[in-house]
Amino acid sequence: MWQTFNFSKSKTHFLFNGKFNDAIKLVNKKDVVFITDENVFNAHQIKFKNQNCIVIKAGEAFKIQQTVDAIIDQLIEFKANRQTTLIGVGGGVVTDITGYVASIYMRGVAFGFIPTTILGLVDASIGGKNGIDVGVYKNMVGNINQPNFILHDYSLLQSLPIKEWQNGFAEIIKHACIKDAAMFNTLQQHDIDFFIKNKKATAQLIHANAAIKIKVVQKDEFEKGDRKLLNFGHTLGHALENQYELSHGEAISIGMTYACELSHQELGFKHTQQVVNTLAQYQLPTYASFNAKKAMKILQHDKKSEEDAVNYILLQKIGKGVIRKIEFAKLLDFLSK
Amino acid sequence: MWQTFNFSKSKTHFLFNGKFNDAIKLVNKKDVVFITDENVFNAHQIKFKNQNCIVIKAGEAFKIQQTVDAIIDQLIEFKANRQTTLIGVGGGVVTDITGYVASIYMRGVAFGFIPTTILGLVDASIGGKNGIDVGVYKNMVGNINQPNFILHDYSLLQSLPIKEWQNGFAEIIKHACIKDAAMFNTLQQHDIDFFIKNKKATAQLIHANAAIKIKVVQKDEFEKGDRKLLNFGHTLGHALENQYELSHGEAISIGMTYACELSHQELGFKHTQQVVNTLAQYQLPTYASFNAKKAMKILQHDKKSEEDAVNYILLQKIGKGVIRKIEFAKLLDFLSK
Repeated sequence: MWQTFNFSKSKTHFLFNGKFNDAIKLVNKKDVVFITDENVFNAHQIKFKNQNCIVIKAGEAFKIQQTVDAIIDQLIEFKANRQTTLIGVGGGVVTDITGYVASIYMRGVAFGFIPTTILGLVDASIGGKNGIDVGVYKNMVGNINQPNFILHDYSLLQSLPIKEWQNGFAEIIKHACIKDAAMFNTLQQHDIDFFIKNKKATAQLIHANAAIKIKVVQKDEFEKGDRKLLNFGHTLGHALENQYELSHGEAISIGMTYACELSHQELGFKHTQQVVNTLAQYQLPTYASFNAKKAMKILQHDKKSEEDAVNYILLQKIGKGVIRKIEFAKLLDFLSK
Repeated sequence: MWQTFNFSKSKTHFLFNGKFNDAIKLVNKKDVVFITDENVFNAHQIKFKNQNCIVIKAGEAFKIQQTVDAIIDQLIEFKANRQTTLIGVGGGVVTDITGYVASIYMRGVAFGFIPTTILGLVDASIGGKNGIDVGVYKNMVGNINQPNFILHDYSLLQSLPIKEWQNGFAEIIKHACIKDAAMFNTLQQHDIDFFIKNKKATAQLIHANAAIKIKVVQKDEFEKGDRKLLNFGHTLGHALENQYELSHGEAISIGMTYACELSHQELGFKHTQQVVNTLAQYQLPTYASFNAKKAMKILQHDKKSEEDAVNYILLQKIGKGVIRKIEFAKLLDFLSK
């Protein structure tokens, strides 16, 4: 059953545990254009049969303006107009770019998402942040605009590679760290293999994580306060991700590790080791060697940066994220240790 | 004195009859980046002294994604962040592109406009439509997002070439046709030379036209109804503009002429000749030869088009625009005559 969640200017219909074709029932079938990537298209070709479909190259490297240009050219060829609904089927790259294109094509058309990755299901598809990268700068261009619908079809996870499970669990561990100590305990008691094998537990975990994200965004859509907490691990993570060609999960896992250490230094946080162990149970990297000065240079362009400081997300305790302004000089010092 | 006008989600501060530097007083001076074009920059260099300034090539041909890409690269170089205000100084191309970049850079930063053309002052800068062209398709990509402020400094008009006066009066005549019979009478009684010479009359006329546009946009920001009337002359106009490399004013002047003829055919409108004469008094083209089939092909991609018809703006009488759905087949027939 579709559930409706209100955001400040619009609403999004969610279908948890639905089927792919429920999306087509929701919209005017002949006015749909699907946007997906090569991996998803090849794994689920039959679902796109007889549909207008734009297939982009897979991966963060293609979350760029050239891909947007190509999609727009194809939309014009398809004679897509303001009655058209764009449906993004894929991970965070596909949904970020679909939402962005939908927000600017003809000054905005309707759009919905069918996330196909754990990361997409629990995080990237939710909250209306759309956009693309510019060089090494993640999500430098974009907007905030909520999709009309998000449909969860867990059967799509069958084709998901292990790498993508790791990626998704980075965001799940993030949610637990900043908002939900009980979920953190559950995660500690299991590991990635358990969830890959146990569909029901995974479905429950995904739903619980989507609920956390929805609630945070409903309270603070335009990231004036609480939504900033979702950037836990992302400030350093984004500075490393494109520079070292890490997956998003790997990058923010390293970012969370250092954010825990910084939380220890600044707030006396005592559970870095627990977080590090849990990340490792989900096959994620933790400590890493990187060029601190180079990372700082990118970080200073982060959207959360001000003139000489950045709003950093730290942990007071497990389940309780907080925002602290950290001066660049202090941060460089910390990262150089 | 600044006046504040509310739109559905935001407000815009207007300063009619202000001075360029009043804009800098309004914002945090060190966080400003000006965006202008080569013509405006060369004519008013002293105003941009010691300011962060991005200078783009002048003209509609550069209202494209490549220009957006270049501006974003320069904003990153300037370390522009979410505290930055972008100020677009120029005609419609500069303000459309400044508003668009400001709406997507870091998912949105503040922006204001200092229009330097008649068209910018009475029309393009007002109403929050931002965006760029894609090939021959005008404003195919963009969004609706209101500027924080619009400042009128009429002294900037001193450097305005005659071509730009003609351009601007096309939109002024449009406003009179759809909304203001009294203004149409005034326009009939004068010509372009009168207004070029008479600063006070021009200032009054600009203010009256800005007021018409503001009022229409306040009532219908997202163009569900009345705002559509502002497209009078624009449907055919846009189909001709980039294809025949016309100025915007020339294109919509031809568009208005044919819209009057179509109004005669569809609604018995009787004053085509008066409109045509008035356009001519302001040195604008009226009847033109063009390839009707080619125009129709572009027109079918117009944002106001549906599957087999387009919402066309017609005149019931001078000062009273109306919206009528015209089938493509009928329109082709009319344009082929």
